[in-house]
Amino acid sequence: MSERGISSAVIRRLPRYYRYLGELLENNVVRISSKELSIRMKVTASQIRQDLNNFGGFGQQGYGYNVEYLFEEIGKILGLNTIQNMIIIGAGNLGQALANYDFDRIGFKVIGIFDANPRLEGLAVHGIEIKMVDELEEFIKTHEIHVATLTVPKKNARTIASQLEEWGIRAIWNFAPTDLHVSDDVCVKNVHLDESLMTLSYNFRNRGKEKYSYHSYMDD
Amino acid sequence: MSERGISSAVIRRLPRYYRYLGELLENNVVRISSKELSIRMKVTASQIRQDLNNFGGFGQQGYGYNVEYLFEEIGKILGLNTIQNMIIIGAGNLGQALANYDFDRIGFKVIGIFDANPRLEGLAVHGIEIKMVDELEEFIKTHEIHVATLTVPKKNARTIASQLEEWGIRAIWNFAPTDLHVSDDVCVKNVHLDESLMTLSYNFRNRGKEKYSYHSYMDD
Repeated sequence: MSERGISSAVIRRLPRYYRYLGELLENNVVRISSKELSIRMKVTASQIRQDLNNFGGFGQQGYGYNVEYLFEEIGKILGLNTIQNMIIIGAGNLGQALANYDFDRIGFKVIGIFDANPRLEGLAVHGIEIKMVDELEEFIKTHEIHVATLTVPKKNARTIASQLEEWGIRAIWNFAPTDLHVSDDVCVKNVHLDESLMTLSYNFRNRGKEKYSYHSYMDD
Repeated sequence: MSERGISSAVIRRLPRYYRYLGELLENNVVRISSKELSIRMKVTASQIRQDLNNFGGFGQQGYGYNVEYLFEEIGKILGLNTIQNMIIIGAGNLGQALANYDFDRIGFKVIGIFDANPRLEGLAVHGIEIKMVDELEEFIKTHEIHVATLTVPKKNARTIASQLEEWGIRAIWNFAPTDLHVSDDVCVKNVHLDESLMTLSYNFRNRGKEKYSYHSYMDD
C-alpha cells in the first residue's frame, strides 16, 4: 500500500471517516456503500471513493465497504492500533481537562504532566502526579514519548517547544495561542481556540451574507 | 466595503492576521510591509495582499500597512469590537477550562454555565454559578446570547443542539465529538480534539514519507 504523496486534505478527513465508521460499528452495521456513507457524512460518494483509493481502496464494486475492516484499516493508517505515550506540559485548567479527556480510546496514554507552579507539584490529575518542569528533560530522555501537548501560556510556549525539540520530541500538539518556531523535523498541530471562536463569530455575524457553508470542520 | 462572496479560506486566515498584528502592536511596530509580514507569517506577500484586498485593502503602495489600523479593522470584521455573550453547556473539565480561558480578550463574555449534574449546581466557575440544564430555555429566552459552547458528552450533543436551535441560538461552538444536526440557520464550528490528535499522530508516524508541511494550522 503506497502512502506517498497523499494530500493533507485527505489525511485530515481520515479521522472523520474513522469516527463515522466507529458509530456504524456501534450500531452493528456490517457493510455500507459509498453512497450511503456519503449521505451520512454529507460529502460526495465520489470523494469517499477517491479518498479511500489513496490507501488501496477497501471497497468491492457493488458490495460496498466492510465497516469493521475499513474502521480497522483506517485506524492502522492513523496509528491508533498501538499505544502512544503523551506528556502534557502546563497543568492549568486546559491541561487538566485534556489529561481527563480519555484519549485512551484512540490509543493515547498520558504518562506525565508537568508545570512550573510549585503549588501544583504532586497533585494528581487522572491518577498522574504533576511533576515540575525541571524534571522534564530527564523524563523525556528516559521514556518513549510520542506526543507532547503544550498548554502553557503564550509567553513560554516557544522556549519550551525549542527545548522539547532539543530533547528529542518530534510531535507537538500546541494549544498555546502562538506559532512555534521549531524545525521541520518536528510535527506541530495547532489548536488555536480563540481563532476558532473568532471564525465562528464572523460566520454568525455574516450569516446570510456569505456563500459558504456554516458547518465548518476544524480541519476543513 | 463589500464582504460578499469572501472564501471561507480567507475568513479562516483573518484570526491569524489579527494575532500577528496584535503581537506587532505589543512590540510597538507602527507600520509593516506585506513582505515583512509574509516572512513572519510564513505565507506569500501576494497572498497577504490578496486576502486583505477582499476587505478593501488597507495598504498604501510603498508604505506598507498601518499596524494599528489594520488590527482594528480586522477586529471589526471579526466582530471583536463588541461584547458578545456566551453560554457554556457542560461544566465538566473542558467546560470549566473554557470558562476560565479568558475569551474576554477577544470580546466574549461567559454569562452562563449549565450542567445536568445536580452536584455541580451553584458551584462557581470563573465567578459564575453553574445552573441546571432545565433552566436553560428560560435563560436563553431572557438573555441575548451570541454563542453557545457545547462541552457535553457525545450522546447528548445532538439533542441539546436541536433544543438550542429551537430556543433561538444561532451559533454553536461544538466540542462534542460528533456532528450536530441543525438547520442552516445555525452556524456551527466544530473543535474535534480527538481528530486533531489523530492527524498529528498520522503526520508524526509518516514524517519523511509525505510531501506536505507538518506545520498544519487547525483551520488550514
